[in-house]
Amino acid sequence: MVIEADVETVVVDAQALEDFVVRVFTNRGVTESNAREAAEVLLKADLTGVDSHGVPRLRNYVERLKAGAVKANPEVRIVHELASTAVVDGDNGLGMIVGRRAMEMAIQKAKTTGAGFVSVRNSSHYGIAGFYARMALPYDMIGISMTNVGPGGGTPPTYGRTGLFGTNPIAVAAPTKSGPPFVMDFATTVVAFGKLEIAMRRGHKVPLGWVMDREGNLTDNPNTRADGGYMLPLGGLKETGGHKGYGLMLLVDILCGALSGAAFGATFAKLANEGARPAGAAPNTGHFFGALRIDGFRPLDEFKEAMDEMYQVIHGSEKLPGHDRIYVHGEIDAETEEYRRVHGIPLDLPTYQSLEAVSADLGLPLTIKK
Amino acid sequence: MVIEADVETVVVDAQALEDFVVRVFTNRGVTESNAREAAEVLLKADLTGVDSHGVPRLRNYVERLKAGAVKANPEVRIVHELASTAVVDGDNGLGMIVGRRAMEMAIQKAKTTGAGFVSVRNSSHYGIAGFYARMALPYDMIGISMTNVGPGGGTPPTYGRTGLFGTNPIAVAAPTKSGPPFVMDFATTVVAFGKLEIAMRRGHKVPLGWVMDREGNLTDNPNTRADGGYMLPLGGLKETGGHKGYGLMLLVDILCGALSGAAFGATFAKLANEGARPAGAAPNTGHFFGALRIDGFRPLDEFKEAMDEMYQVIHGSEKLPGHDRIYVHGEIDAETEEYRRVHGIPLDLPTYQSLEAVSADLGLPLTIKK
Repeated sequence: MVIEADVETVVVDAQALEDFVVRVFTNRGVTESNAREAAEVLLKADLTGVDSHGVPRLRNYVERLKAGAVKANPEVRIVHELASTAVVDGDNGLGMIVGRRAMEMAIQKAKTTGAGFVSVRNSSHYGIAGFYARMALPYDMIGISMTNVGPGGGTPPTYGRTGLFGTNPIAVAAPTKSGPPFVMDFATTVVAFGKLEIAMRRGHKVPLGWVMDREGNLTDNPNTRADGGYMLPLGGLKETGGHKGYGLMLLVDILCGALSGAAFGATFAKLANEGARPAGAAPNTGHFFGALRIDGFRPLDEFKEAMDEMYQVIHGSEKLPGHDRIYVHGEIDAETEEYRRVHGIPLDLPTYQSLEAVSADLGLPLTIKK
Repeated sequence: MVIEADVETVVVDAQALEDFVVRVFTNRGVTESNAREAAEVLLKADLTGVDSHGVPRLRNYVERLKAGAVKANPEVRIVHELASTAVVDGDNGLGMIVGRRAMEMAIQKAKTTGAGFVSVRNSSHYGIAGFYARMALPYDMIGISMTNVGPGGGTPPTYGRTGLFGTNPIAVAAPTKSGPPFVMDFATTVVAFGKLEIAMRRGHKVPLGWVMDREGNLTDNPNTRADGGYMLPLGGLKETGGHKGYGLMLLVDILCGALSGAAFGATFAKLANEGARPAGAAPNTGHFFGALRIDGFRPLDEFKEAMDEMYQVIHGSEKLPGHDRIYVHGEIDAETEEYRRVHGIPLDLPTYQSLEAVSADLGLPLTIKK
């Protein structure tokens, strides 16, 4: 969710915000080292402009830690492994800690064999998928990260109207020679839920293709979910390729869930229908991480030069009227981060107020305004 | 491209058709063993209903073999490898032979380490991506297959209007316990080009979201390409997630092209602009293959049971009005194959006539009618 120009915001200092998040996590029993690692994941979202996945979720993390629904310092352990693969048990831990440990394992395996793939169970919400894919970049590897998110809100399969799938994001990162890295990180729904929320709050219509009503027709009414409608998978309805987005959602559920033993869309829904999963139970979220050593394929320099050539051709290609620039995935993120590190991060008012609430609740001073 | 009910077709026997394809390939110098392997790839497309990627392309393969643009019996060799990775040189060979050899290497690596990934250069059109992903299934592995296809027709990046990307398909296959395997195999454009061709031929309008005109507006006119318009990536325009489809196209180009040294969309376009690639030159197509041993993660039975549970919940979920069944990817293919093995394969008339032309050209009898 990108904050729109006419939304009231509070501009905060990135380092002060990160320090506040660290204090919040240590206050809730997270070790200093784990707290720094978790805060870094959240800040990366706030810095790169993924404004729904950073500190706006801090309050949720705090509530889960307080309730004991997630562990502050999980013992993340390998259950079974081969030279290039592993299943990891996240010990119901804070997702950012579980995610970092598991991606480190994938990278370690790739150092040895060229490829490392790790599927994770018993984890929880891990923030932005792209953070973990980016972790491969300093090692000159291609990084892959996916997470299932259960049927939160829920998107049905093609021709269905039961919300079985979460927004199941997929992220891939690859280095370039001279520009920012390639970082693709997106929900497998048409849009993230935050964008629909903005339209609902403001009474705006949404583009045809985002949602369908309960009869399966496209509608521009963002409130259709309350009447049994649903957000659509990438591609929209069947006639414009919605079955492809549905396939990508399934793929994420297979790699994060069926392959690890985590819960996934269809089983979440089944459990919910049967009343078998008590409220507040550990979420058993699944993740999937991958790392590929570039020099396990091609000399690193040749790869990076090919990436740069690709970017140059794309940037130099003809633009549509009204556009003076063509972007490659990862460029806007890099430019946003560069700007926000200097000029501060604009938090929308409800987010800033949620941090004030955390501050008051835990008795930790909030001095983050730029 | 699915053949529509009112198209004139000739029903042919699957085994007789496969034998004819083998005779055509051996006539062009392909060894009996290579010819059987290549024919099997084409027939899998015709049997499973991917009616654009099987024998309708036989004439193209024959022409390329006759012109010496692709080698009948390539020496497919590993250029560089680690335990779980390799770059393979396809020796400008027939794509189906190169693809099978490379996927076999990925599977062999996965047997040892749990994961095998192979990027391929100097190949050519390899048929359906899904065939190679399916090759992992008898080994109880998850299979992955991608290919870049250059800027044939071409789809521009978001905000652009130069066709830089091919339909760059992605396929993934995973086994189940009792039903057909999960097989996802799709172009990263909204639809395959064949569907647009049908609409052009018949003067039909197409759904909004398939193509844009040269100003970047959605249009229902399938002929817009002649006026500078383009097919859109999965997701359509930016507002409905088209940048995600563009990201998937890039990802395929990175894994098949930048990682192997094959040509890819942007470089193809660059070469074409500079006149640097002579007509009829070897295509230098790239592929990417992956295999993951399921028991490198989780006991095989547990995985397959989780897959079955997922299918059951999806099948049993509520349907939209007018639909009495919800499909999972791979089911329609399996049912189509079962039917066509018994009742024959319906080829549209132009395809049957192209086989008659090959038959006359090479002096090989065509006795394939059911």
